[in-house]
Amino acid sequence: MKHLIGIKDLSENEILSILELGETYREKLINDRNNIPQILKDKVIANLFFEPSTRTRMSFEIASSLLGAKVINFSENVSSIQKGETRLDTLKTIEAMKVDAVVIRSSISGLPYILARDLKDVSIINAGDGSHEHPSQALLDALTLKLKFGNLNRIKLSIVGDILFSRVARSNIILMKKLGNNNIMVFGPSTLIPREIETFGVKIAKSFEEVIEFSDVIMLLRIQTERQNSAYVPSTREYKKFWGLTEDKLRSINKDIFIMHPGPVNREVEISSNIIYCDNSLILDQVTSGVAVRMSILTHILSSTLKF
Amino acid sequence: MKHLIGIKDLSENEILSILELGETYREKLINDRNNIPQILKDKVIANLFFEPSTRTRMSFEIASSLLGAKVINFSENVSSIQKGETRLDTLKTIEAMKVDAVVIRSSISGLPYILARDLKDVSIINAGDGSHEHPSQALLDALTLKLKFGNLNRIKLSIVGDILFSRVARSNIILMKKLGNNNIMVFGPSTLIPREIETFGVKIAKSFEEVIEFSDVIMLLRIQTERQNSAYVPSTREYKKFWGLTEDKLRSINKDIFIMHPGPVNREVEISSNIIYCDNSLILDQVTSGVAVRMSILTHILSSTLKF
Amino acid sequence: MKHLIGIKDLSENEILSILELGETYREKLINDRNNIPQILKDKVIANLFFEPSTRTRMSFEIASSLLGAKVINFSENVSSIQKGETRLDTLKTIEAMKVDAVVIRSSISGLPYILARDLKDVSIINAGDGSHEHPSQALLDALTLKLKFGNLNRIKLSIVGDILFSRVARSNIILMKKLGNNNIMVFGPSTLIPREIETFGVKIAKSFEEVIEFSDVIMLLRIQTERQNSAYVPSTREYKKFWGLTEDKLRSINKDIFIMHPGPVNREVEISSNIIYCDNSLILDQVTSGVAVRMSILTHILSSTLKF
Repeated sequence: MKHLIGIKDLSENEILSILELGETYREKLINDRNNIPQILKDKVIANLFFEPSTRTRMSFEIASSLLGAKVINFSENVSSIQKGETRLDTLKTIEAMKVDAVVIRSSISGLPYILARDLKDVSIINAGDGSHEHPSQALLDALTLKLKFGNLNRIKLSIVGDILFSRVARSNIILMKKLGNNNIMVFGPSTLIPREIETFGVKIAKSFEEVIEFSDVIMLLRIQTERQNSAYVPSTREYKKFWGLTEDKLRSINKDIFIMHPGPVNREVEISSNIIYCDNSLILDQVTSGVAVRMSILTHILSSTLKF
Repeated sequence: MKHLIGIKDLSENEILSILELGETYREKLINDRNNIPQILKDKVIANLFFEPSTRTRMSFEIASSLLGAKVINFSENVSSIQKGETRLDTLKTIEAMKVDAVVIRSSISGLPYILARDLKDVSIINAGDGSHEHPSQALLDALTLKLKFGNLNRIKLSIVGDILFSRVARSNIILMKKLGNNNIMVFGPSTLIPREIETFGVKIAKSFEEVIEFSDVIMLLRIQTERQNSAYVPSTREYKKFWGLTEDKLRSINKDIFIMHPGPVNREVEISSNIIYCDNSLILDQVTSGVAVRMSILTHILSSTLKF
Repeated sequence: MKHLIGIKDLSENEILSILELGETYREKLINDRNNIPQILKDKVIANLFFEPSTRTRMSFEIASSLLGAKVINFSENVSSIQKGETRLDTLKTIEAMKVDAVVIRSSISGLPYILARDLKDVSIINAGDGSHEHPSQALLDALTLKLKFGNLNRIKLSIVGDILFSRVARSNIILMKKLGNNNIMVFGPSTLIPREIETFGVKIAKSFEEVIEFSDVIMLLRIQTERQNSAYVPSTREYKKFWGLTEDKLRSINKDIFIMHPGPVNREVEISSNIIYCDNSLILDQVTSGVAVRMSILTHILSSTLKF
C-alpha cells in the first residue's frame, strides 16, 4: 500500500489486514501504551486540513505521534494558499521537503486521486474529500463493528441521513460490499437517497419503523450543511421528526439496536441528547477505534518492516 | 491528584509538594536540560485554549514536551466547535482518543469542574476559567516568591487591580491563605474590590501610599478588557494615575519592593515601561517558574512512578 | 554563531561551513534518514511567524524535528499580540521560558537585529524581515547552485523581478559577493531596480534577451503584492509579458539555462505554468536544500558539540 485514497482501491485482504493490526493497536493504546513500537520515528507526516476538523485531525495526529513520527500541521489560514499557490504546487513543495505522508482533507471530491497521480514519492492519505470517500472513517467503523459482533458480513446495518452527498455512507457501503455483507439498508429524505443504490443490493427503507425492525446497528449521518445545497435539506425540526433517532423510536421494538455516528453530533437533530451516550451507543467506541485504525493505516503505508 | 481545577481543592501538603518538585525542575530547566527525566514519554496531552493565550499555552506545551509527552494543540477556529458540538461532546471525544490530560482555558467560570465531573478517565488541568481560578498561575507565583524569600507565610503581598473579576487574584489569595499567610492586601478601583474579602482576613488599601508602605511585593493585575463590563473600568489614563505602578511611586519610600505581573503587560497602564524589567521586577522570573511549576503539575497528575 | 540575522554578518568561512554541513544533511535527509544525529534533543525551538508562510515555517519545523528538537509554534491570531503586548515583551517572555532559539518572520525590516540586541540568551534566526534579509533562503539557494555547478564563484546568475524590495534578492546578492562572484545581473521594472546597485558590481539588464544571453541561472522573484506600494507594480499581464519567464523566451537561445524561484510561484505571472517543473527547473531542488540547510543552520547555532 502506497496511498489510501478510497475503500474502492482496497482488496478484501488489505481491509482485513488493516483491521487486524488495528485491533492489536487498540489494545496497546488502552492498556499497554509503553509497548507501542516507535516504528515511524524517522518519518515526517504532514496534516493538511482544508476543511475544519477536530476529531479526524487530532486522531491522525495522536496516531502518528504514538508511533514516534514527527507531525507537521498545516492549516489554510496561515499558509501560502493565501498567496495564490495551487494545491498541486503546495503538495509538490511538501513532497520536496521529503515529507513521507500527507493526510489531506478537502472539499474537492477526487483531489487525493489527482495528487496521488501527480506526485511520485509522498504517500497520500485521504481524510475525506468532498462527497467522495472517507476511507479511515469506514475502517474505524468496521473495526468498531468487528469488536462488537465478531464478524462483519452478516451485520444488519442501516445508514440514516444524507446518503447522496455523504462520503461516510459511500465508504462504509463500499467496504461492507467488499466484505460480502448484503444486509445494508439506507434511509433519509428522498432528495438525498440515490435511487440507483438499489442496483448495488442496498435496500431503501420507506419509514423509520422499517429501519428499526431491520437493524442490528443504525449509523446516523451528520447533516453537512457546509457541503450541501440547502434546497435538499429540510429544517432541523422536520429532520429530527422524520430521520432523527429518539428514545421513543429506539424503544418501539424489544431488541438491542446499536447506534453509531461519525461525529460531531448535531444534538436534537440526528439524535436526541439523552441517547447519545446510552449503553447501546458505540459513538465513543468509534473514536477510540479511530486512533487505533489510523495507527494501522500509517503502519501499512509507511513501515517497511511490516510484512504481509 | 487526578485533576487540577482550583487551588481551593489542594491541601497545604499538595501545594508544597508541587513547589518542591517545581524547584527541582527549574534548576534542570536552566542548567541541566539533558537530565530531565522523560517520564511522560507515553502520555498524550491536549491543549484546548478557547481564549487567546501565548504564555500559558506555550508554557504548558514546553513543560509537556520537555518531559517527553506528545502534545496536541486544539484551537477554536479550526475545530468542530464551528459545527455546533458542545464542549462536553468535544471533551468526551478527546477522552475516547485516550488522551491522558487536557489543559483547558475557557471564558466559562466553572467549566473545568463540570468536565471533571462528567469525564471519567482524562485528567483536567485548568489553565484559567473565566473569573474563577488560574491555579498554575498561583503556583508559579508562589514558586517565584519562595525562591526569593525562602518561605511564603510571612511575605507582605499586595495585589493591585481588578480583584473582583481576576482569577489570578482569586487563586493567589486562596493559596496564600492555605499556607497561613495573613499579610495580603488588595487595592483597585472601588467597583472592582469585593467588600466581603475583608471577612477572609484580606486588607483593603485606601491609597497606593498605603500599598507601598505595607508591601514586600506588589502583584499588578492585567486590565482584562476582554472579560469585563466596561462600566466597571476607568480609562487607561486614569487607571495608570491611580492604580498603575510608576517609578515615582516605587521610589517614594526607601525600601526594596518587588514587582510581579502575570503578563501580558499593558505598558503605561498597570506599570510604566521603564520599570517592567528593573532589578526588582520578578516578571520574567515568574515566566521561568511557570514552565518549571507546570512540569511539576504534569508530573504530579500523570506520572505513576512519582511517590509522595 | 549565536544568531542568524543576515548574510551580511557572515564570513566566507561561515557560509562555506553551513553549506558543507547542509550537503551532508541533504544526503541523510534523502537516503539515510535514520542516521540523522538527534543533537538537538534537549533544545526547544519556537517558530514565530508574523506573516503568512508555508514553506519556510514547515521547512524550519521539519529541520528542527529531524534533529530531535521540541518545536513550539506561535501564530499571531491566537496570541497575546491581540492583547497589546509589544514584540520585545513577547520575545523576552519566550526567552524566560528557556526557549533556545526563535525562528522569526516579520514585516518589520530590522526587527531581528533589535531583538538580538535586547535579548541575552535566546538565539534569533531571521526567517525574513520586511524587505531587508532572508538569509536561510540565500543559503539554500547557494546549496542548490553548489550541488548543480560545483563551485559558486563563477556562476552567471540573473535575478529577475522586484530587486528594490526583495529580501531574497538582497540576501542572495550579498552572499554571492562574499564568495567572490562578480557575475550577477538584475532585471525588472525600472521602478523596482535600485540604480546604485551597479556600484556594487551588479549588472543591470535592459531586456530579457540580455538576461537570457548572459545567464547560467535565472532566479525569478515573487511579486510581493502584500509588501509593496501598488504604484510600483505593473499589472500581472504586463508583468508576464516583460519580466515573466516563458518557454519561448527560454528556447530563444540554444543553451541550458536553469530556473530558480523562492516560491510560492504566481503561475502565469513570474513564470508560465508549463516550465515550472521542467527539467531545467531547480525549484523543487531548492525546497529540498531548504530543509537541509536549515538543519545545518540550527546545528551551527545550537549544537555545542559541533566544532569548527
